[in-house]
Amino acid sequence: MSEGTVLIIGAGPAGLEAARTAAQLGANVVLVEKRDRVGGTPDESNYAKLTHHFRDADEAIGELAEAATSHPHVQVLTNSQVVSVAGEAGDFRVGIQNGAGAKTVHAGAIIVATGFQHFDPGRETQYYNYYSFSDVITIADMEGMLKAHQVVRPSNGQPPERVAFIQCVGSRDRQIGNEYCSKVCCGIASKQAIEVKQQLPNSRVFIFYIDMRMYGYWENELYWPAQEQHHVNYVKGLVSEILAKDDRLLIRGEDTTMGRPMEVVMDLVVLSVGMEPSQGTRQVAEILGLEQNKYGYIQAGGPTHIDPVATSRPGIFVAGAAARPSDLDDTFATAGLAAARAVATLRQPVMA
Amino acid sequence: MSEGTVLIIGAGPAGLEAARTAAQLGANVVLVEKRDRVGGTPDESNYAKLTHHFRDADEAIGELAEAATSHPHVQVLTNSQVVSVAGEAGDFRVGIQNGAGAKTVHAGAIIVATGFQHFDPGRETQYYNYYSFSDVITIADMEGMLKAHQVVRPSNGQPPERVAFIQCVGSRDRQIGNEYCSKVCCGIASKQAIEVKQQLPNSRVFIFYIDMRMYGYWENELYWPAQEQHHVNYVKGLVSEILAKDDRLLIRGEDTTMGRPMEVVMDLVVLSVGMEPSQGTRQVAEILGLEQNKYGYIQAGGPTHIDPVATSRPGIFVAGAAARPSDLDDTFATAGLAAARAVATLRQPVMA
Repeated sequence: MSEGTVLIIGAGPAGLEAARTAAQLGANVVLVEKRDRVGGTPDESNYAKLTHHFRDADEAIGELAEAATSHPHVQVLTNSQVVSVAGEAGDFRVGIQNGAGAKTVHAGAIIVATGFQHFDPGRETQYYNYYSFSDVITIADMEGMLKAHQVVRPSNGQPPERVAFIQCVGSRDRQIGNEYCSKVCCGIASKQAIEVKQQLPNSRVFIFYIDMRMYGYWENELYWPAQEQHHVNYVKGLVSEILAKDDRLLIRGEDTTMGRPMEVVMDLVVLSVGMEPSQGTRQVAEILGLEQNKYGYIQAGGPTHIDPVATSRPGIFVAGAAARPSDLDDTFATAGLAAARAVATLRQPVMA
Repeated sequence: MSEGTVLIIGAGPAGLEAARTAAQLGANVVLVEKRDRVGGTPDESNYAKLTHHFRDADEAIGELAEAATSHPHVQVLTNSQVVSVAGEAGDFRVGIQNGAGAKTVHAGAIIVATGFQHFDPGRETQYYNYYSFSDVITIADMEGMLKAHQVVRPSNGQPPERVAFIQCVGSRDRQIGNEYCSKVCCGIASKQAIEVKQQLPNSRVFIFYIDMRMYGYWENELYWPAQEQHHVNYVKGLVSEILAKDDRLLIRGEDTTMGRPMEVVMDLVVLSVGMEPSQGTRQVAEILGLEQNKYGYIQAGGPTHIDPVATSRPGIFVAGAAARPSDLDDTFATAGLAAARAVATLRQPVMA
C-alpha cells in the first residue's frame, strides 16, 4: 500500500537514509540527485574511512545506497535538479529538469538533503597558501590519498616525515563570517592522523588546535587512542601563517599552552577545512522559498525548538548538513526524523 | 487505521518525541513511565531554560508532552515499569508492573528511551567536597535556583559575588571509568553562566575548562555572547581541589594557559557533572537482554554503523541518552528515527 509520494532532494547520506526510511514506512519516494550517481560528498570526495569507527566509507555508504535504491518504492532521478515548486503540504508540484527534458512530480511532502561543501581555503585565508604551495592540502584532499594508500608530498611524490593538521580553517572565524564551529573537523583530523601513522609508521604527526571538540565517544574512541596508541601530537596553538622554507613548509604561530611563539618545519600541512552550506543547499532554499540562517544553512527547528527538521514552510523538512554542521550519526538521525515527519504529512497534511 | 503497537519505555524528551512520531505514523503507542508524570529529567531536575536557545523548559517540554499524550493512539502508563519481555520483533509480549497490578502488552516493536542520570560527584571525587561544603553544588542544583530566581549561597542564603563552574566532573576521567565526554556540559554551563549574570549582574562568573566543546551553533549562539555580552570569564585550567577558606571556597589547580599554579576564592562553585546511563537504562537493558557498552549505555549502531538507533536485538530500538551522551536535538532526532524504525517493523517485521 502506498500513502503518497515524498520527494527528496539530494542522494548523499541524508537523502539515502530519508529515502530508505520513508519507503519502509510505505511512501513512494522520488529521490532527485544532480550528479550522475548517488553517494553524495563521501563518494564525490573519495572518503577513505568513516569517523569515528574506521568503517570503509564505500562499503558503509554503499550498503545504505543499496538499501535505499533497491527498494521498489524508491525512484532515483540522477542528473536532475529541482527548478520550481508550487502548491502546499499534501499537494506539492515540483518541477524537475533532467538534461534536456523537464517533468513535474506530485508530492505530498519534500525533504531537503542537499548537504554541505568543504570550505575553500583559497577564498579568504590566502595566508595559508593553499593555492600557492602544493604541499598544503585539505582534509578532503587527504581522504583521497589515504584511500589510495599514497600519502605523499604532492611537490615531490615522497612520503612526508612530518605532517601537521591545522584546525578551524574556515570555522570559528568572524573575519570570513563563519562564526560557527563545524563540529566534525576535530574528529576527522584525529581519524586521519591515526591513518597516516598506520600507513607511515615513521612519520611524526601534529594537530594544532584551539579546543579539541571530541564530544561523546569520540573522546574515548579516537582522541585517547590517537595519543596513546598512535602517538599523535596535539598542540594547543594558533597558526598565523605558512611559509616556504627551502623545499619544506614553515608553520609560524603561537603555542598557547607554552605561551610562546612557535616555528616548526613540516613536509605536509593539512588544513582542517570546515563545513559550509553547499551551493545546492543555497539554490534549493531559494527555489523552495525556505528561510536560511545568516550562514546560508536552511533555518531549522522553528520557534518551538522541539522539531529540528522543521523548516519555515509546512510540509518541507530538512535532513543532515543542509541545516547545520552534522556528523554522520546526526545525519542519519535527522534523516529518519524528517522521513517520519514527511510520511506523517502524507497521512495528515495539517499536522497537530 | 492502526498498524499495531509500539511500546515505548520512558516518557522524557526521547520517549515523548518517539510517541508523538509513532502515533502520527499510525501506530498505537503504549508509553510506560516509572514516575507519576511525564517529562523526564528536564521535569524531575527542574530545568530552567533549554540549551542553547533559552526557551523555557517547562513550556517546551510541556508542548511536546501535550502533543504526545493528547494523541488518541497514545496510552500513557505512569507509575509503571517493564519487568519482562518475551517473543520477538513483530510479536513481543511485555510484562508491566503497575503498583500492585501486573499486565501484559502485546507490541510489535519496542523503543527504549530511559535516558541518563547526572553523575553523582560524591561517588569518587570527594576532593571536590560536594557533600562536605554546601556552597559546592552541581549544574542540576543550579537549574533549580535559576528557575526560582534564587541564585544564592546555600550556606547563608546570600547572592554570591564570585561563581565558578568546573567542567568535566565525572567525564573524560579514566580513574572513575568515564572516559567519554558528556557532550552537553560545556553548553549547559555557558547557558547557566549567562543566566547567573542576567540575574546577578554584579557577580563575576568563571568557567574552568579543559576544552570548550561548543560545537556547531553553540559556538556563535552561546560561547561568543557569553564572553562578549555577558563577560563570563573562561579559564583553561585543571582544578585539583576545593578547600574551605574562612566562609568561602578556595579553588586550587593549574591555569594551563598561563602555565602556573592557580588559587582563587569563590562564593559558589558549580560542578558540571556529566551524564551516566540511568538506573532505568541499566535495568531495562538487562530485562530486554540488550548489549550495553562498557559504560552501561545501550550499545547502538550495530556492526554496520549506519543505524544509530539499532540495538543488539531486532525490533528493539534506542532513542536519546540511553545510548550515548546527547543534547536535545540529538534526542529528538534519534527518537524520530527510532519511531520510524519501530513503525516500519510493524509493517514488515523482518527488515530488509
